[in-house]
Amino acid sequence: MNKKALQDRLRRIEGQVRGLQRMIDEDTYCIDVLTQVTSVTAALRAVGMGLLDDHVRHCVKESIEQGNGDEKVEELMAAVARLSGK
Amino acid sequence: MNKKALQDRLRRIEGQVRGLQRMIDEDTYCIDVLTQVTSVTAALRAVGMGLLDDHVRHCVKESIEQGNGDEKVEELMAAVARLSGK
Amino acid sequence: MNKKALQDRLRRIEGQVRGLQRMIDEDTYCIDVLTQVTSVTAALRAVGMGLLDDHVRHCVKESIEQGNGDEKVEELMAAVARLSGK
Amino acid sequence: MNKKALQDRLRRIEGQVRGLQRMIDEDTYCIDVLTQVTSVTAALRAVGMGLLDDHVRHCVKESIEQGNGDEKVEELMAAVARLSGK
Repeated sequence: MNKKALQDRLRRIEGQVRGLQRMIDEDTYCIDVLTQVTSVTAALRAVGMGLLDDHVRHCVKESIEQGNGDEKVEELMAAVARLSGK
Repeated sequence: MNKKALQDRLRRIEGQVRGLQRMIDEDTYCIDVLTQVTSVTAALRAVGMGLLDDHVRHCVKESIEQGNGDEKVEELMAAVARLSGK
Repeated sequence: MNKKALQDRLRRIEGQVRGLQRMIDEDTYCIDVLTQVTSVTAALRAVGMGLLDDHVRHCVKESIEQGNGDEKVEELMAAVARLSGK
Repeated sequence: MNKKALQDRLRRIEGQVRGLQRMIDEDTYCIDVLTQVTSVTAALRAVGMGLLDDHVRHCVKESIEQGNGDEKVEELMAAVARLSGK
């Protein structure tokens, strides 16, 4: 996921969050708002996975190649743990 | 969570998503962007739980009291399943 | 999900956990063990959703019908929050 | 997490799953069973994170050092995505 693709996704997510505000304003039925919340959460998670993927393929890989990957691996695992909700 | 509180939270989330775009623009270190993604996801999840809570306390409760709760319960459980990521 | 179906699922999960121990014993490739961990987690989550569903359809519904559902709803929402990993 | 520690955790998880069967047999209150399901899920997730951590620190690191890490990274990211429930 390049910078342009990431920004496009984030802009779409921003629009979805504004859509949620509109739904609340218009007293949309709870379950429909919830469905939209689930969809925004999934879009954000996809961005997170994209960033993670990119990070491993570049930063972590390069650090290991240069012989000092341990700290990066430590940091990576902490990020994975946070992202997977624990 | 009343309408005003929900809107405040959603506006804050919208700001966080714009913050993410800024972080990408400024080539912020991946792991820091990821930490922010995790924090926005948690904020959205809290909104989802708030909506769910409200829905059960009002819509579902009233439907059951009026003797026609079965459809609402069905719909609720589907929303819980989606929200908890499956 | 009735008692018999629940027990069947739990026995299958118990077998899967023993299978994991065997995989570790036999030095199975990490990623294959992880795939199996993911599958056991999904099976457990399905049991959790089944229990939740049953609980709402009976306990919560009856309490509301008898006019004292508030405590049950409170308790339910706390369980949903725990189950969805927060 | 070494082999011995992993096996200890898995044996404990197996015992917890048998405990769940007992709870169902004894008609334990749904919410208490659910709390136990949540706790077993968390224990399994910890095993998954331990395996993942170990995998990155050894297999993935070594593959990258030997100049052929790309396939391992691909495989890793797929496992992370599955584990984090998507």
